[in-house]
Amino acid sequence: MTVTAPNGFRAAGVAAGLKSGGAADVALVVNDGPATAAAGVFTTNRVQAAPVRWSRQVLRAGKLRAVVLNSGGANACTGPGGFQDSHATAEHVAATLSGTGTGTGTGTGTGTDVGAGEVAVCSTGLIGERLPMDKLLAGVTAAVAGLADDAGPAAAEAIMTTDTRPKTTVVAGGPAGAAGPAWRVGGMAKGAGMLAPSMATMLCVLTTDALADPADLDAALREACRTTFDRVDSDGCLSTNDTVLLLASGASGVTPSAGELTAAVTAACADLARQLIADAEGASKEVAIEVVGAASETDAVQVGRAVARNNLVKTALFGNDPNWGRILAAVGTTSAVFDPDQLDVAINDVWICRDGAAAAPRDQVDLTGRQVHIRIDLHAGAATATIWTNDLSHAYVHENSAYST
Amino acid sequence: MTVTAPNGFRAAGVAAGLKSGGAADVALVVNDGPATAAAGVFTTNRVQAAPVRWSRQVLRAGKLRAVVLNSGGANACTGPGGFQDSHATAEHVAATLSGTGTGTGTGTGTGTDVGAGEVAVCSTGLIGERLPMDKLLAGVTAAVAGLADDAGPAAAEAIMTTDTRPKTTVVAGGPAGAAGPAWRVGGMAKGAGMLAPSMATMLCVLTTDALADPADLDAALREACRTTFDRVDSDGCLSTNDTVLLLASGASGVTPSAGELTAAVTAACADLARQLIADAEGASKEVAIEVVGAASETDAVQVGRAVARNNLVKTALFGNDPNWGRILAAVGTTSAVFDPDQLDVAINDVWICRDGAAAAPRDQVDLTGRQVHIRIDLHAGAATATIWTNDLSHAYVHENSAYST
Repeated sequence: MTVTAPNGFRAAGVAAGLKSGGAADVALVVNDGPATAAAGVFTTNRVQAAPVRWSRQVLRAGKLRAVVLNSGGANACTGPGGFQDSHATAEHVAATLSGTGTGTGTGTGTGTDVGAGEVAVCSTGLIGERLPMDKLLAGVTAAVAGLADDAGPAAAEAIMTTDTRPKTTVVAGGPAGAAGPAWRVGGMAKGAGMLAPSMATMLCVLTTDALADPADLDAALREACRTTFDRVDSDGCLSTNDTVLLLASGASGVTPSAGELTAAVTAACADLARQLIADAEGASKEVAIEVVGAASETDAVQVGRAVARNNLVKTALFGNDPNWGRILAAVGTTSAVFDPDQLDVAINDVWICRDGAAAAPRDQVDLTGRQVHIRIDLHAGAATATIWTNDLSHAYVHENSAYST
Repeated sequence: MTVTAPNGFRAAGVAAGLKSGGAADVALVVNDGPATAAAGVFTTNRVQAAPVRWSRQVLRAGKLRAVVLNSGGANACTGPGGFQDSHATAEHVAATLSGTGTGTGTGTGTGTDVGAGEVAVCSTGLIGERLPMDKLLAGVTAAVAGLADDAGPAAAEAIMTTDTRPKTTVVAGGPAGAAGPAWRVGGMAKGAGMLAPSMATMLCVLTTDALADPADLDAALREACRTTFDRVDSDGCLSTNDTVLLLASGASGVTPSAGELTAAVTAACADLARQLIADAEGASKEVAIEVVGAASETDAVQVGRAVARNNLVKTALFGNDPNWGRILAAVGTTSAVFDPDQLDVAINDVWICRDGAAAAPRDQVDLTGRQVHIRIDLHAGAATATIWTNDLSHAYVHENSAYST
């Protein structure tokens, strides 16, 4: 049920012709309230797509009535015209939801006025091309007409690009009563992140029927992203379009504590992040890089990320080669606290490097499976962090060398 | 003539059996003086190979009588035993040059005592394995016996790993007289750098018959590396073994100015860096990323490096795809001064992006050749820098996934 699992939400997914082949490419998520609190986390890339600029501005007010998402075009690096397109899309969503749309839809909105400033926009696809606005706006009209409280799965399918399957999640909040949990977090995601880079974008919409104010949602979402999506690093590239949104309808009437809210949102993000890694384009391995014994969590993340981004490590994993020397060389590029002569490395639980030198024989390491667990002990403290990544394969090169042409 | 082009130097290259196949794998460069001033620049990786630790220590005294180099093993991440191996190699070079070697050589040294503390050691090959010292020391003995003042080319061949050809250079210093230039800089290099990463190492030995003290050599070498080798960035990986050495014999009797010395050393390094890029493993493109209009040279280098290391840009170039959106996304990850809406990008002189959005049509860009020139205008100042890199190809993945196994 994804984004429509919590009460107070409707969704739709329709085919507007933005993608060749007729697949669904426009999704809409509507919060019917009673509350409309929302929060968002966006890419830190300084080159930001028009929909990111628009949505970031909208989120300043801390409320969202709807999110419209399209695949088939990123609307990034499209100049002032591109920003006008995102704005016009939000205007059309608002007008159509308010029953005053000029399209072919039936205007089955909430009967209340919705402003464009309450509508976030997300786009994913090729950078540098304007969107076909006639098709997109017609798709929005159709999506409004198709809104349903069980259409979360259709929305999750409409945001897919090179994803081979939709990514959805539902997390129960609070103790379960006779009618189920007191409140829920639902979510959908596509891509990407720094994962399925030929599309170069991760989009995620989370919904909850908990009652929470925008500041609480913002704090929960930032903490959740920090330890989940921010630690997925497939190829080190940072999209112009990455967006994670959290909408709260308050329909459950339950106000969870900050800790309960953060835990549920984090669980939802972790589940979606795991699905992103598992479906990464062109990857033959899902790699968890666990750094232990770090002087600080920052150090642990820095080391894990350096290893995750190292093309020599990634190609070795693709080749089923437990090349721990390349891992050490990657660790050595960081400023983390460690003594090179005290580094230990295990691959799939075999400690092939101790004290910065060879230990267990390479042939004890079995790398034939899809799951790889690298553990790096810095012997510098008690902090730890795990970064998730993929290998660097022929399929990665193929998919990313043949994308826009 | 490479390292033996300047007066006062002898060299040798022999096969010691470190490499399978019988190719030359031990090189020796000897400075016969009268001066023995020297300087070195080493990898900034904190995980440093034993020969780097040894040579860095030796260079503190600012003088070198000899450099011994081996391919067939990096002697990195080999623990205290590996350091003892580097030390023992230097001891054996010193003893054999002094005519007291215990090997089969004839001890055709300079007749003067050489100490191990005047002998630098360089190694390249697989990380994490000890060197076969019996073979290496026998090779050193043979190399001393084979020293000749015209054997620079043999030395340049002996340091090759996956290089398809030796890299050598000779630069004339000062005005040419009847007998040629007043002084010269000669050099040889192998690899790699961050270029031919399956070997993950660049080694370079430069020689000059100019008179210069260690501090002048150090200043000239650091400035030369800063604008040449340091701006070659094939895959962002940083070796545990990178070493650049400069030895001055003073045999010309000429003391160039600091500017003259720096210019000649820089020219030699630039020539070798160009050869490294041209021979990068698995690369189908040689890519110059020229950043102009930067607020500072640091900004220009940061932007160039971010683009050079971006796997999405690199795979697009492999696919002959002028995907300027990926270039902008890479620029956006930096902290350089720029306005995203004022970025211009040209590929092979076609300005396909102006003001952060599409300009000339993609199909005007011809990417079929091996040379690619990307120009990025930040419109933030007058500084400029160029980073040289390669594309990311199937051959890169193949060579680096099948190396140690």
